[in-house]
Amino acid sequence: MQIDIQRNVEISLSKQIYQSIIDRIRSGLLQEGVQLPSVRDLSKQLGVSLVTVVKAYQELEKEGFITSIQGRGTFVKVKKSEEVDKKEETLSYDWQLSVQDYLPRSQFARFHLVPEKIHLSSSMIDPGLLPNRFLEQEVHKMLSNNPRILSQYGEIQGDAELRNAMHEYLKGFEVPTTPENILVTSGSQQGIDLVARTFVGPGDVVVMEAPTYPGAIDVFRGRGATILTVPVDKDGMRVDILQNLCDKHKPKIIYTIPTFHNPTGSVMTLKRRRQLLDIAQSIQSIIIEDDPCSEIYFDKKPPASIKSMDHHGHVIYLKGLSKTLAPGCRIGIVAATGSIFNRLLAAKANTDLGSPLLTQKSILPFINSKRMLDHLKKLRTALRIRRDLVLELLSQHSPDGVSWVIPQGGLNLWISLPSWLDSNHVLLEAKKQQLTFLPGSACFLVEQENNHLRVSYSYMNELLLHQGITILCNILHSEISSKKASGSSPYF
Amino acid sequence: MQIDIQRNVEISLSKQIYQSIIDRIRSGLLQEGVQLPSVRDLSKQLGVSLVTVVKAYQELEKEGFITSIQGRGTFVKVKKSEEVDKKEETLSYDWQLSVQDYLPRSQFARFHLVPEKIHLSSSMIDPGLLPNRFLEQEVHKMLSNNPRILSQYGEIQGDAELRNAMHEYLKGFEVPTTPENILVTSGSQQGIDLVARTFVGPGDVVVMEAPTYPGAIDVFRGRGATILTVPVDKDGMRVDILQNLCDKHKPKIIYTIPTFHNPTGSVMTLKRRRQLLDIAQSIQSIIIEDDPCSEIYFDKKPPASIKSMDHHGHVIYLKGLSKTLAPGCRIGIVAATGSIFNRLLAAKANTDLGSPLLTQKSILPFINSKRMLDHLKKLRTALRIRRDLVLELLSQHSPDGVSWVIPQGGLNLWISLPSWLDSNHVLLEAKKQQLTFLPGSACFLVEQENNHLRVSYSYMNELLLHQGITILCNILHSEISSKKASGSSPYF
Repeated sequence: MQIDIQRNVEISLSKQIYQSIIDRIRSGLLQEGVQLPSVRDLSKQLGVSLVTVVKAYQELEKEGFITSIQGRGTFVKVKKSEEVDKKEETLSYDWQLSVQDYLPRSQFARFHLVPEKIHLSSSMIDPGLLPNRFLEQEVHKMLSNNPRILSQYGEIQGDAELRNAMHEYLKGFEVPTTPENILVTSGSQQGIDLVARTFVGPGDVVVMEAPTYPGAIDVFRGRGATILTVPVDKDGMRVDILQNLCDKHKPKIIYTIPTFHNPTGSVMTLKRRRQLLDIAQSIQSIIIEDDPCSEIYFDKKPPASIKSMDHHGHVIYLKGLSKTLAPGCRIGIVAATGSIFNRLLAAKANTDLGSPLLTQKSILPFINSKRMLDHLKKLRTALRIRRDLVLELLSQHSPDGVSWVIPQGGLNLWISLPSWLDSNHVLLEAKKQQLTFLPGSACFLVEQENNHLRVSYSYMNELLLHQGITILCNILHSEISSKKASGSSPYF
Repeated sequence: MQIDIQRNVEISLSKQIYQSIIDRIRSGLLQEGVQLPSVRDLSKQLGVSLVTVVKAYQELEKEGFITSIQGRGTFVKVKKSEEVDKKEETLSYDWQLSVQDYLPRSQFARFHLVPEKIHLSSSMIDPGLLPNRFLEQEVHKMLSNNPRILSQYGEIQGDAELRNAMHEYLKGFEVPTTPENILVTSGSQQGIDLVARTFVGPGDVVVMEAPTYPGAIDVFRGRGATILTVPVDKDGMRVDILQNLCDKHKPKIIYTIPTFHNPTGSVMTLKRRRQLLDIAQSIQSIIIEDDPCSEIYFDKKPPASIKSMDHHGHVIYLKGLSKTLAPGCRIGIVAATGSIFNRLLAAKANTDLGSPLLTQKSILPFINSKRMLDHLKKLRTALRIRRDLVLELLSQHSPDGVSWVIPQGGLNLWISLPSWLDSNHVLLEAKKQQLTFLPGSACFLVEQENNHLRVSYSYMNELLLHQGITILCNILHSEISSKKASGSSPYF
């Protein structure tokens, strides 16, 4: 077990140890019954005091993550209902446990595809809202005209026709680029990963919003970066706090989701976008502008992309098509300039020699046609109806002490519970009724706020959404009233 | 420019600096005209003596890679005919040059897809030899039955039906695994990359064959590994040398292509396979068994896979389908066991949330049918004819001093030139006549042997193969006779 300790951040060392172990447990990387290093060994390995490790272990034991057995040691005690994979490894693979890895966290995947019937945990689109039949017919035409698409490698940078089409498409959303500055990736996730593997290494400072997209935390943690966080309010990242932070540290990368922020749904104002770019220019940082769903706005168009204001190559812009068109094709793009672009392209080559030609050619006819814009119009309407349904149900049925931010676009709704109520606990109750959502803890680098949860209203139809939100409200009512009855809440 | 210096290997420090700079130039990452750090700065940065850096720079200048300008500094001087990308970056992106990256080498991509008419440089299959029309019809059927495949994420581990089918397919080649222990990847390249990112970090020792697949060197160099090499002879990796090496160092990973080795075509004997596995077991190392094309044998079936003898989870087995079925789908698999498998799966999630469902479902009907085996039979025959053609032409037309290994399978032929003749130079001449091949230098970690080249006979039809080998032989004749005429060769 490799634990990265950062000494130049404000998080205490014992909290960092605590968090590293929780991350591995929640990622399924430390499994039930596995023995942890002794306090003495871990303190020696990390060069920290015995007290620091003891404090971390005590906290973990208090929270029910680990258990100490007198005379035997300390073991992971996974809560049974968390359904961690419990494959019994035969004894003959035991040697593998001593093989160190560079994988401190992989939490997002565990909430991505889950068996529960009412699935509000991933921001995926209901397949019923996507133009599958049309795409299918276009794939058929395209392949019967040129079946060799199946037997050819595409360009590593991505199919030239698709890059042209994406260039035109992005122009419509005020994201200026050129086909030469577009790199096709396997979804935005790969875009984030390419930037991280190319530019981030141990000790490099990365700034992320708190909360943020868990899949991005997984990636940057895996590069051993020193991650600093900046809170988000209704106008997006608190750029004033970022400015203060940059006076002390020089971040190499600033990762942001400015439009319909994941998970909070907030939209960064134009003013803050400009300020953010100014800061990046003044300290020569790279901004990753992750833009999964700015097309899905409910009222007015969001402000111009940061990329549109970037004249010196500071912005690496990411756009995925899995949220709007064809998740089964896993197509995203990275738009960047100069030597930053060239290096990302080289990294893509090392990673997988380029995305499959078939998936790229499959979405091409649709992206190239006016149908894409018509489809987006319909998608906005459909998702707005679902959002409104959720908002209405919450207003009617949620107990006092529960609040939420009304998203003006995107796929997610961020709900805050009373501060004493851990959404991981609520999730356990929800799963018993075939409901899942994303617990807020997954969206934070360090678990300081566990009283939030993210509900995605994009995947379930209205009937299941109705059932899901009703179940959620019932659970919250019951948790809050039992706390009231016990009289120990600070809120009542 | 980040240069990794390894102090526990037998390669001199100045040679390491020399190689790092060549790698970046050959990868297009250090472009023409870029200024190198001063001798003083580099020696300080790396903690080596001035003499060490001077020696490296002198050697680079002698070889024509860099040039020193009195009073101005040292600059990269790329040979114009090497066609490095020469995009003029506007001045406004200049700040980007100071952004350090973790990408020391990306050479393979530069030989992968090239514009030359007679393309012998990539081991790709002639699309005319692949069952495109049949696949196309199956894709059509599959999508019209279930167009939602386009709008659904697949399982991160890979589509369950495909994992079942691959399990059955591999069983036919004596590679025992289970659907649960198979992870679907975007080609074998991603398989190599997943293992590297999960288990290899700075200072970890990786053993590779010399020569080996350049795309694997790119990946392991990118992880900052200490790479040690073991030569290959006609019976595969020299396991006796590996044994000696393991007495001093403990490799974490041993990367091998035992069957129809890339680039030499050699086949590791069953005895050496057993010895290799014994070594890995005795020192608790992981073997990566990269198996791109054991299906393509010309005479007898190759020996059993190392994976088939592995009872303790030491072997991570990689199989790609881009060499035999559908490069446009980029499907490969990783087979592993125990916690090593679980960690690779988590890494895959962080990388791209899983390969596209469309490409996985597209090859499924074919893999599932007897047609796959019939297709392989035909492919073996067709490729054998092409190999024989190349061998015949070489026997007839190549000059004295040129030798080669007869491949018993696979896609490649490894040719050795007189030791004074640099195949990079031959490549420059070849390109003038629209011919490319892979220069041997790309297959070595350190350029000690530049007198080899790899010819792939799988991509060009017989007419173009004929032209290509004839051109190659003519160039070799002319190089060797001009050397003879100048009388300075040690060979004549």
